[in-house]
Amino acid sequence: MKVTILGNNSALPAFGRHPTAQVVSLFGDLLLLDCGEGTQIQMQRYGLRWRNLQHIFISHMHGDHYFGLPGLINSMSLLGRTAPLHLYGPAALMPLLQQILDLANTTLSYPFSFHPLPDGAGLLADTETFSVSCFPVKHSISCHGFLVQAKTKGRKLVPEKCREYEIPVIFYERLKNGEDYERKDGLLVKNDWVTIDGPEPKRYAYCTDTIYTDSFIDYIKNSDTLYHESTYLEADKEKAAMRFHSTAMQAAQIAVEANVKQLLLGHFSSKYKEQEPFREEAATIFPNTIATIEGTTYEI
Amino acid sequence: MKVTILGNNSALPAFGRHPTAQVVSLFGDLLLLDCGEGTQIQMQRYGLRWRNLQHIFISHMHGDHYFGLPGLINSMSLLGRTAPLHLYGPAALMPLLQQILDLANTTLSYPFSFHPLPDGAGLLADTETFSVSCFPVKHSISCHGFLVQAKTKGRKLVPEKCREYEIPVIFYERLKNGEDYERKDGLLVKNDWVTIDGPEPKRYAYCTDTIYTDSFIDYIKNSDTLYHESTYLEADKEKAAMRFHSTAMQAAQIAVEANVKQLLLGHFSSKYKEQEPFREEAATIFPNTIATIEGTTYEI
Repeated sequence: MKVTILGNNSALPAFGRHPTAQVVSLFGDLLLLDCGEGTQIQMQRYGLRWRNLQHIFISHMHGDHYFGLPGLINSMSLLGRTAPLHLYGPAALMPLLQQILDLANTTLSYPFSFHPLPDGAGLLADTETFSVSCFPVKHSISCHGFLVQAKTKGRKLVPEKCREYEIPVIFYERLKNGEDYERKDGLLVKNDWVTIDGPEPKRYAYCTDTIYTDSFIDYIKNSDTLYHESTYLEADKEKAAMRFHSTAMQAAQIAVEANVKQLLLGHFSSKYKEQEPFREEAATIFPNTIATIEGTTYEI
Repeated sequence: MKVTILGNNSALPAFGRHPTAQVVSLFGDLLLLDCGEGTQIQMQRYGLRWRNLQHIFISHMHGDHYFGLPGLINSMSLLGRTAPLHLYGPAALMPLLQQILDLANTTLSYPFSFHPLPDGAGLLADTETFSVSCFPVKHSISCHGFLVQAKTKGRKLVPEKCREYEIPVIFYERLKNGEDYERKDGLLVKNDWVTIDGPEPKRYAYCTDTIYTDSFIDYIKNSDTLYHESTYLEADKEKAAMRFHSTAMQAAQIAVEANVKQLLLGHFSSKYKEQEPFREEAATIFPNTIATIEGTTYEI
């Protein structure tokens, strides 16, 4: 499970940094979290194939988080996409998109489903390999964070044990699903004789844009990686609060409180050219911090 | 008078080419013609200052011609712009923009005036240094072309004659405006004794998106430079007509009929990687043809 940062600047593009968008890759699927202007171009640039993208999540109705959406949706249709696309976002988003499509006299080439975000927290997508839920964060307008959870791929085989008990290869998939195996000689091979626990499924929490608050800590607790906005440095703490944004130090405090393993910072204000000071500030209390760099893919 | 191409691809970005946008520069003013996704980033990249931009013209409601507009308008406000901005476009554009601003709870920091395009032809902007008018072209939805005309800077001084008649330098500006000068000895120096005609004001015609038609020839006749879309090559003539677009050859035919001096081609389909074949095809009947390259500035 990985995340590729397509844009990590706040509000408007600056210093070659784009507005917010990122792609989570897991088991061959791509999930797009927010879709700032230029996202379709950024996906092309970093080799992220649109056909693997079936789920888009929009956090709120500030333009730097969705102005790339009409173009992306439209371009997929122009290229004759047939795979379904699911969009999860604020309720007001769909009528706006429909209006844009109608004005261009456009009918999309593919099945398009819109799922409005609930007022509070809720489960949005639930597939065989992942689930995505949302929870409210605190911004100047209604805004949600997202939690992406991979699903366990079941039990992990111990090959030498499987051979020792002479289990036919054809039964291996059922072993992975936790089943016992009954041999022809009557011996019941218990599943945990030949398998061990699979890897712990990964959890990725995405929190932008938000003022510093612990109100959503319960939703992101123990995540493997937390992406938390850090629009400002601590010296601009008042400005951050006034604009319903956070500082790098505050992001680190959330990382500590939520007991996550890794912190990714982003949504940097255009007043800062350098990103390293964000990492330095957060690392004073949460060492495993990365100030994200556009076009870079991070292991979750 | 120059034009800088910010995007010359049709429909969607491809091969590093952006959707349609271009900036006409004259006497320090910038005029933006169409505003495809990524325009604000392209303007930054090519050093075109937003503060010199006070007039934006949108040809029609296909996304590749205006999806960059909400971001640009919004970013100008975030940076605290105070200079007025005039937007000229299809009537449906303003309610859409207003909705986008309202959903983000945004009030623009600067005076913003919207001027809906008329059904037919008409004068849009008329300043001391330029005028812009529009005329209908033929596309799958209502679409306009634009004609940008510089205004004459008046008479051109002949310095040796001015000195010969002993005209004080302080009067030179009035000479440029066509006035005669009465000397203290009573001699009336006629304006045309000391000046010649100023340079002919330039005319730039912008025609995209349109099927091949001579219906708008009268509006663009004798322009210095014609930008005409050439989405396809002549081999795809049927496809061009079906989609209300033109070929490079057809663009050249319009250039010939309209008796323009120079032809710029653009709005290339994503099926073509190379642009040179467009120039070659058009040049067979209109030699002074350029297949535009993004980021390049052309003298009009």
